[in-house]
Amino acid sequence: MSKSNVIEILLVEDNPNDIELTIRALNKNNLVNKVHVVKDGEEALDFLFCRGDYLTRKKEKPPKVILLDLKLPKVNGLEVLKEIKSKEKTKYIPVVVLTTSREEKDMMESYRLGVNSYIVKPVDFQKFIDAVADIGLYWLLLNEMPT
Amino acid sequence: MSKSNVIEILLVEDNPNDIELTIRALNKNNLVNKVHVVKDGEEALDFLFCRGDYLTRKKEKPPKVILLDLKLPKVNGLEVLKEIKSKEKTKYIPVVVLTTSREEKDMMESYRLGVNSYIVKPVDFQKFIDAVADIGLYWLLLNEMPT
Repeated sequence: MSKSNVIEILLVEDNPNDIELTIRALNKNNLVNKVHVVKDGEEALDFLFCRGDYLTRKKEKPPKVILLDLKLPKVNGLEVLKEIKSKEKTKYIPVVVLTTSREEKDMMESYRLGVNSYIVKPVDFQKFIDAVADIGLYWLLLNEMPT
Repeated sequence: MSKSNVIEILLVEDNPNDIELTIRALNKNNLVNKVHVVKDGEEALDFLFCRGDYLTRKKEKPPKVILLDLKLPKVNGLEVLKEIKSKEKTKYIPVVVLTTSREEKDMMESYRLGVNSYIVKPVDFQKFIDAVADIGLYWLLLNEMPT
């Protein structure tokens, strides 16, 4: 976890176990010092729009990917996604929904709001780790976004 | 390459070398029988909207990912992307732009039109193969889309 200016992954997740597993997975690929974790939707938006505790981020680059849980305190994941994808400042940041929900309506709504990718968290411990590692590599090393 | 009902990757590419490399990469992961190749933007749209030579696809599932070059004969890649993302029937299909263009305006426009991911083709032969293999696995095995 990092508060420096090299944050490339914003993890929006309130479940402590999933945070720990995600960090462990990213650590495997030496990506862990590029992650910042926020535990509710409000803090995610503060981070992205450089408000509240994140005023000092104004001159910093946006992350290269946002890993977004759907069931979140304060502001839920779909609301966060809607905000991100409707604002010029943030709409170009790739958002990957990472959720336990396999519900058709969550998937439809996420795609309708402009999610870049939708991934159902594998239940198996090792598969979860492998999936997160692959997600990190894909969006940080392969995908390109406008500067 | 396949015309059966298991097409999961639509490759829209006119460069014979890139087609060959892409097929070789997908072959590595046993995904090659799930690919269908079209060589211009018009045929891509015919395939997706089940028109022309593709009338018989009407009852078949859409692909799980579209790999889209930008410089294409007849209808260019950005036009194809715009059509896909503006129609209810096709807007939920993930589109990965796979291009030699690193130009900011192509990237901006792709994201503005709703591309799911934008990847610059690696110049190095082996890196190109590895990238395509990773793209195939990510969108076929990790990502979920509405049915």
